[in-house]
Amino acid sequence: MAAPEVGNKRVTLKRHVTGFPTEDDMELLTPTARLAVPPGSTAVMVKNLYLSCDPYMRRRMTKHQEPSYPEFVLGEAIPTFGVSKVVESGHPDYKAGDLVWGMTACEEYTLITKLGSVFKINHPELPLSYYAGVLGMPGLTAYAGFFNVAKPKKGDYVFVSAASGAVGQLVGQLAKITGCYVVGSAGSDEKVNLLKTKFGFDEAFNYKKEQNLNAALKRCFQEGIDIYFDNVGGAMLDAALLNMRLHGRVAMCGMISQYNLERPEGVHNLACVVTKRICIEGFRVMEYFGTYCKFEEEMVGHLKEGSIIYMEDVVEGLENVPAALVGLFYGRNIGKQLVAVAHE
Amino acid sequence: MAAPEVGNKRVTLKRHVTGFPTEDDMELLTPTARLAVPPGSTAVMVKNLYLSCDPYMRRRMTKHQEPSYPEFVLGEAIPTFGVSKVVESGHPDYKAGDLVWGMTACEEYTLITKLGSVFKINHPELPLSYYAGVLGMPGLTAYAGFFNVAKPKKGDYVFVSAASGAVGQLVGQLAKITGCYVVGSAGSDEKVNLLKTKFGFDEAFNYKKEQNLNAALKRCFQEGIDIYFDNVGGAMLDAALLNMRLHGRVAMCGMISQYNLERPEGVHNLACVVTKRICIEGFRVMEYFGTYCKFEEEMVGHLKEGSIIYMEDVVEGLENVPAALVGLFYGRNIGKQLVAVAHE
Repeated sequence: MAAPEVGNKRVTLKRHVTGFPTEDDMELLTPTARLAVPPGSTAVMVKNLYLSCDPYMRRRMTKHQEPSYPEFVLGEAIPTFGVSKVVESGHPDYKAGDLVWGMTACEEYTLITKLGSVFKINHPELPLSYYAGVLGMPGLTAYAGFFNVAKPKKGDYVFVSAASGAVGQLVGQLAKITGCYVVGSAGSDEKVNLLKTKFGFDEAFNYKKEQNLNAALKRCFQEGIDIYFDNVGGAMLDAALLNMRLHGRVAMCGMISQYNLERPEGVHNLACVVTKRICIEGFRVMEYFGTYCKFEEEMVGHLKEGSIIYMEDVVEGLENVPAALVGLFYGRNIGKQLVAVAHE
Repeated sequence: MAAPEVGNKRVTLKRHVTGFPTEDDMELLTPTARLAVPPGSTAVMVKNLYLSCDPYMRRRMTKHQEPSYPEFVLGEAIPTFGVSKVVESGHPDYKAGDLVWGMTACEEYTLITKLGSVFKINHPELPLSYYAGVLGMPGLTAYAGFFNVAKPKKGDYVFVSAASGAVGQLVGQLAKITGCYVVGSAGSDEKVNLLKTKFGFDEAFNYKKEQNLNAALKRCFQEGIDIYFDNVGGAMLDAALLNMRLHGRVAMCGMISQYNLERPEGVHNLACVVTKRICIEGFRVMEYFGTYCKFEEEMVGHLKEGSIIYMEDVVEGLENVPAALVGLFYGRNIGKQLVAVAHE
């Protein structure tokens, strides 16, 4: 008997974006889909439970992007990381009912053909949404970026921008666990308050209220910065360079302040890289997927002990993906932005 | 019997500089000096033979520089690297007649009190001027920057800016010895010709004649750049970032294009650092002084074999230091700029 055909709601990109994205750049469509894996295929059909909204997705909304960020295909479900349940599997490693996280798409059901970045969920006793955040791509980003790229030592002075976001809140907590002094920047007093009272940052500031970012950093880092975990780029990076210590390291994770600009802002203080012998290193999380299992066990330990907490901003309903995605660029989310599509 | 008092010509900075330096910013003075080491001191009195003119010195001509480039003291002989002969020594490791290279000053005789960066010349059979160039500070800069910071592999695509200069000409030759493909940029057709015919670069271009630096690099590097050895910063760095390959490395040695600007140019393409996982690392040669002896033996070997050649631009006479220093910023020198003060 053939699998039933169902309406499969999806969020698609209607047009490629310049400048700030709007909800109207996206569109909710409901094509039909057969909930089955094509005969002979090793693909997996999943039902999506949680979908992740991440700043880097903005880069894929632009036409003619660099090959490493291929542009989204108009009319197709927008690819993103998510938490899903296997409905049917053509692959020997997966069976119906398995819970997985990895690259899926903004729709109710997705046929995943590339299983290289799909991982089994080993701790379903924790909130499943964690696998779109602290135990998923953003969690591994924070962990690998901090330990493998920024290479912290106890006592280091660490600065994190977008510090209450999906990645930043974890970098700050990992830095505290490592014995570092940690300062975060965020875009509202409410977020700054969270950094200090909930995530244990030593200090935090609201960058929108600072006349002079250099002065703000000087106030928070009288001894200078050993590690800057950069999620924003632009003017904050420029100010951080002025405040780096000798042999400081910049782990370059993202540049949310630049994604909506036609031409990125200029960074003027790179001479500091020579004088202070700074190392600036970019990284991308997929290069660390091979270390996922080790990371998962360690992070699960922290979560169960309570030594790391994670704040999520979950909106209900696939139809709210456009608003959630757009909201990232106005700082509307408090914590990791997720969309709950279905509850198993 | 007291040592004789002599007139000791010196080149001093008359005023701190903004914008391009001029010869008039400097002044030739002739105070008297006693050619003796003060009793009880471990200092060394040297007669200067060759003095080095280097772009980084421009940074010390500006007032209120960062602590790592302390500003020159007005009226005192301008400190620089040079080749000297010991006249009198209060230090057990040095004796009259020793040939040394290291930090001295733009004058006929210098009392060197800080001997931490003064090295014995172990190969006086080679031209002594080499110790202000290929066997001195610029040589070690090229060697340490290329091997320790840029970390080349055979087959790497290497780009060097200011490629016929004191450091660049060596980086290119070291890259060829390592089995890399090497392209250099320089500021005149004569220099470009030298790069290709004398220093063995695979390709070279005159950046002043290029409409579009990005296009010039694309033409020379169809596969992209693995290593950019940056001596200039600014627009060339921006163009290089667009052409870096995945996991490319930028060894940031200097930024001659920026030293005379009141406000450095903005670099707009740092997003490439994330997408292509580039590592940008600044370095300074003094951190590698501990490796000098190993470097000296290896470089002497190359010079004697003829596998490395070195081009110098020597002007005669201490009084020509101001013109030589200013000339660096107009690209007047062809090869390493030196001033011969005395011939032993």
